[in-house]
Amino acid sequence: TKEIIRKELARWFVSLAIGVCTGLIACLIDYLIELTSSIKYGYVRNYVEKCVEDFCLYAPFLMWVAFNAFIVMFGAILVAYGEPMAAGSGIPQIKCYLNGIKIPHVVRIKTLICKVLGVVCAVAGGLAVGKEGPMIHSGAVVAAGVSQGRSTSFGIDFKIFEYFRTDTEKRDFVSGGAAAGVAAAFGAPVGGVLFSLEEGASFWNQALTWRIFFASMTSTFTLNVVQSYIKGNPWELSNPGLINFGEFEDSKYAGFEIPIFMVMGVIGGLLGALFNQINYMLTCYRLRYVKQRWNQVIEAMIVASLTATAGFVTIYFNNDCQPMKDKTQTNLVQFFCDDGQYSTTANIFFQTPESSVKDLFHNQPGSYEVKTLGFYTLVYFLLATWTYGLSVPSGLFIPCILIGAAWGRLTGIFFNYAFPEADWADPGKYALMGAAAMLGGVVRMTISLTVIIVEATGNISYGLPVMIILMIAKWVGDFFNEGIYDMHVHIQGVPILGWEPPVMSSNISAIEVMSHPVTVFRTKETVGRIVSILKADEHHGFPVVSNFDPHDGTISRETFGTFEGIIIREQLIILLKLKVFEENPDYQLILKNIKASDFRDTYPRFPPIQQINLTSQERDMTVDLTVFMNPAPFTISDRASLPRIFRLFRALGLRHVTVIDDKHQVIGMVTRKDLARYKIWRHHGQISMEEIQISHG
Amino acid sequence: TKEIIRKELARWFVSLAIGVCTGLIACLIDYLIELTSSIKYGYVRNYVEKCVEDFCLYAPFLMWVAFNAFIVMFGAILVAYGEPMAAGSGIPQIKCYLNGIKIPHVVRIKTLICKVLGVVCAVAGGLAVGKEGPMIHSGAVVAAGVSQGRSTSFGIDFKIFEYFRTDTEKRDFVSGGAAAGVAAAFGAPVGGVLFSLEEGASFWNQALTWRIFFASMTSTFTLNVVQSYIKGNPWELSNPGLINFGEFEDSKYAGFEIPIFMVMGVIGGLLGALFNQINYMLTCYRLRYVKQRWNQVIEAMIVASLTATAGFVTIYFNNDCQPMKDKTQTNLVQFFCDDGQYSTTANIFFQTPESSVKDLFHNQPGSYEVKTLGFYTLVYFLLATWTYGLSVPSGLFIPCILIGAAWGRLTGIFFNYAFPEADWADPGKYALMGAAAMLGGVVRMTISLTVIIVEATGNISYGLPVMIILMIAKWVGDFFNEGIYDMHVHIQGVPILGWEPPVMSSNISAIEVMSHPVTVFRTKETVGRIVSILKADEHHGFPVVSNFDPHDGTISRETFGTFEGIIIREQLIILLKLKVFEENPDYQLILKNIKASDFRDTYPRFPPIQQINLTSQERDMTVDLTVFMNPAPFTISDRASLPRIFRLFRALGLRHVTVIDDKHQVIGMVTRKDLARYKIWRHHGQISMEEIQISHG
Repeated sequence: TKEIIRKELARWFVSLAIGVCTGLIACLIDYLIELTSSIKYGYVRNYVEKCVEDFCLYAPFLMWVAFNAFIVMFGAILVAYGEPMAAGSGIPQIKCYLNGIKIPHVVRIKTLICKVLGVVCAVAGGLAVGKEGPMIHSGAVVAAGVSQGRSTSFGIDFKIFEYFRTDTEKRDFVSGGAAAGVAAAFGAPVGGVLFSLEEGASFWNQALTWRIFFASMTSTFTLNVVQSYIKGNPWELSNPGLINFGEFEDSKYAGFEIPIFMVMGVIGGLLGALFNQINYMLTCYRLRYVKQRWNQVIEAMIVASLTATAGFVTIYFNNDCQPMKDKTQTNLVQFFCDDGQYSTTANIFFQTPESSVKDLFHNQPGSYEVKTLGFYTLVYFLLATWTYGLSVPSGLFIPCILIGAAWGRLTGIFFNYAFPEADWADPGKYALMGAAAMLGGVVRMTISLTVIIVEATGNISYGLPVMIILMIAKWVGDFFNEGIYDMHVHIQGVPILGWEPPVMSSNISAIEVMSHPVTVFRTKETVGRIVSILKADEHHGFPVVSNFDPHDGTISRETFGTFEGIIIREQLIILLKLKVFEENPDYQLILKNIKASDFRDTYPRFPPIQQINLTSQERDMTVDLTVFMNPAPFTISDRASLPRIFRLFRALGLRHVTVIDDKHQVIGMVTRKDLARYKIWRHHGQISMEEIQISHG
Repeated sequence: TKEIIRKELARWFVSLAIGVCTGLIACLIDYLIELTSSIKYGYVRNYVEKCVEDFCLYAPFLMWVAFNAFIVMFGAILVAYGEPMAAGSGIPQIKCYLNGIKIPHVVRIKTLICKVLGVVCAVAGGLAVGKEGPMIHSGAVVAAGVSQGRSTSFGIDFKIFEYFRTDTEKRDFVSGGAAAGVAAAFGAPVGGVLFSLEEGASFWNQALTWRIFFASMTSTFTLNVVQSYIKGNPWELSNPGLINFGEFEDSKYAGFEIPIFMVMGVIGGLLGALFNQINYMLTCYRLRYVKQRWNQVIEAMIVASLTATAGFVTIYFNNDCQPMKDKTQTNLVQFFCDDGQYSTTANIFFQTPESSVKDLFHNQPGSYEVKTLGFYTLVYFLLATWTYGLSVPSGLFIPCILIGAAWGRLTGIFFNYAFPEADWADPGKYALMGAAAMLGGVVRMTISLTVIIVEATGNISYGLPVMIILMIAKWVGDFFNEGIYDMHVHIQGVPILGWEPPVMSSNISAIEVMSHPVTVFRTKETVGRIVSILKADEHHGFPVVSNFDPHDGTISRETFGTFEGIIIREQLIILLKLKVFEENPDYQLILKNIKASDFRDTYPRFPPIQQINLTSQERDMTVDLTVFMNPAPFTISDRASLPRIFRLFRALGLRHVTVIDDKHQVIGMVTRKDLARYKIWRHHGQISMEEIQISHG
């Protein structure tokens, strides 16, 4: 009883720690970005102001390019040479991890370090990236680290939380960490919980969800306290999240605007599908031709230089001057404008993306010219498609929000122009709706994204329009291709399972799905055969059978002995390492001394089979697997249909299941890969099912 | 392919319809309550004002009592004689339904009618009840009705949505309806989704959740449109939900208030546990002694009279006068107060509970005297414990909020008194926190309740304190007893499964859990045996076996033949009804003509076996069950542990599973009842497991 209560308390304590650490890391990232950006922009901005008069604009331009390329180079080197797993937003990887697929290095501390420093470089280097995806990934790594009470990379073991060293417990904490990351990034604790559920959970559990919520609340709170302290109003706790979309004063909408929003949803879906398609082609190209590390670094530097160039060109040719409202705004860039005016274009490019988002949402009507916004949308769209997939940590939320806000604001300006009397046509509101549409079209998330947007605006009255827009954008986008995260998951050939069994699969039976010749072990198996099979075979679980003769060489064999249980690769390796062989003189003693912790201590990095040294004498000994196997795993009948097998896997998070016939004979194994082969194609309104090839790697 | 798309579109359409209908019903309930209440209170209030001067107060008092008792009598008759299932909040019943347990009459149209009219009577009759729980139940019934495209009660069949006539589909829609109910009641669409998930879902599905969210958004929107239309500002859509807690102007809190909130959480937990304990004892008493219908009606009338009396006595002895701020507030009651003043006590009792909630949250500091609030807390606490469980529809949210807001406001007044300088000690804020604590202590919901409160206040900055309070209230309460909904579920002896397998149950194997002598059918079974078994046995699913002789009378038999598949009671009845007997001359023709719709059309009310008439000649015929049985259901090994079986049931929503040994012989069946016997006791910090007796009814 006490053990259970202690474990329960430890779970809450770990959730608290996850929340606090994630909040602190978010603060750190934010602080570093603010610091480097303000240095860079301050320098470039002053230089520009000077050179506008002296006709030496090439100098600040080159300086800007050099700045960006240099900072981004640092980030790209960190990722390419340090830890390639730190590239991108990390959301696809977290998705796979929560789906039950082990991807190496995803939750290592080294990944965390590269991710944090890398994202600072990427954002400060002016790339079209955000810091939100990386922040979510960081939260997940923190959770994995804290919950295990040790770091295998550093060889530190605090000897605490040893009972959490299992896949299930770790995965639960990682989902808490991801939620805490969302909470810190957007100030959206509820959105974070829903994100974890939408992307990861297969089975809703009240206690678990409550702990996840606790972690994300703590993370928002920590961030809040630290930020309010930095800003000099300690305990003024009304400043959640790193991207606050700012408050919408007059948050009303009229019923007749809903059709407009729906059209915006369609546009968002179309643009999103285009975005994903271009990005897909680029990624495939990159996988084929940009393999070497230094190539990746150079590509990142090229994009960084191009981003700076694009910015400069836009500013140069779009001399969109607006009167300064307030002399105190020292950050505004005058550029070619008259005194007392500032260049809005320069302003968009000479500040962090977060500030641009706020400006697009909240600046007065008339702050931007039409051509500025149009040009900006186009340039940023192309840059963002190119950037996502570079060898730097890069979030997608901010670029999508910027693109969407730009064309959304354009829509608002259009309505202002068409109906000059209308007070409902607030460009800021339309910028928000455009941002939602673009996000929905690209990432295709549903309820969690709605709640994130609602929480980030701090306003629930926009809930319904945002939801309608996201729904339509997702429908339109799904007509053409998948969401960008799913796309990247599939490019990597990861056997992820969807939400529903493939349609039209109910006439496919286990016999067709299963992998056929099965590698099985006998209840009493020789050490030699175990070693050679583990070396030759990559599977994770093996059925243990009786009435089976491995040396009976008929290849067309239908069954593989009577099913007795299942044994896991890691268990076998530990048994070999501890030499739990029946012929050992001290066999009884070894058996008595074996503890659960023997299996737990090596988690999660089991020694590979190659590291186990055995004498040839030992290879002739036998292991009694019945003592260690799982004697009652889930099995399925050979007549079970694909949807039924799918549900079993999905609901229980299984990795493999044995197929037995009605004589209790093993006739096959079904793994995630076998199921993931059957994929639904639902493009252009057509639904069909296809077997696809999953890379066996 | 087309079939699939049509089905998908139909699902969305049904969700839309559910949202709209639920929203409309919520409007109807609200309108009727407002109407009856304003008539009643207007009448009584005027009379009181007159009688205060004429010393005839007994007259309005008696009139008030008579009014209440009469209105409540009407509601109680509706429930007791009309549909007993309409009593209470309906949340426990919905919980069971979503958990996969069939409770008769829960989602009938008759229940809906009794519920809607009943709750109007209960609230208008002045009982200490709210309309929220019943609204959630109404949403669920609407969903069940709309999704089936017919009403069996009225014998109407629109012949649409026939493909939704299965348990799974219907349950999915019902969860959407419950969410729509929450959304309409509290203006909390996200909270509604989370409510459905927390109370019902066992398996998170992205598409389903998105549809549920759509239904709840639609419901909020519909309510919003209708309400804004009634109030004369059509399309002014910023008025969601029936209970709006009103906006908190200055929604800040300081870090040092968090410990105070934590103590309030403890108080809420203690009071909640006390509330549940008293209500539990009353319910048990009622089950034993108040069985007859007219007794139930009389009890409801007694409580109604007592409520009126308590109100009157409170008003009479608490002459808490406050100056009127505004001459236009015609609703205020002067009572014994001087001119230009009004009696706050009278005011609490002479308006609908919703208005009282708003007053307690938002009235100026100093609007209430300490003794008024103290007396009110005590009286309302006792009345509410007595009321929940009466034979009227009754929601628990509003009473809990009122009690909590009253003592929470007291806390705020205390801090105002102790620290006269403090501007943080806003009584309204403390009233909100007290309401959260009380709700948490009584209903013990977690994330959904947090989000509901946050959405109802329209303010996310109180999220963290509300969450902390709910967490602590739940912990403290769980130390003593269960949440009130779980308590009522268990009183009814429903075999509901928790979230987690019972602790310390991993050494219990399937052999111990399963029901032992199993009723099985042979692959070719005689009609006579089927009929007699269906009449004698209440089970829902029966294993079909080969190698079994039913006339072999050894009782100590261990196995029941080789497992071939499973057949459901309803299928057998349809087979008998259609006379699918092998000896029938037109057997092949019948077989060819049998369609899925034959099984679907009778859903959900299958004819009882007693209605099937068969000649004695037909009784000697045989049915070939292999054609209709499910040949590959989930099975478990006799060595499987209880937690493993539990997870299978919970994750896949199973109702029964066959236990087979390693020779593929049927040796037992596990049903929900078998699992629900193992219950965790976690009282007073002790955790232990116990087998309990589940009523077999």
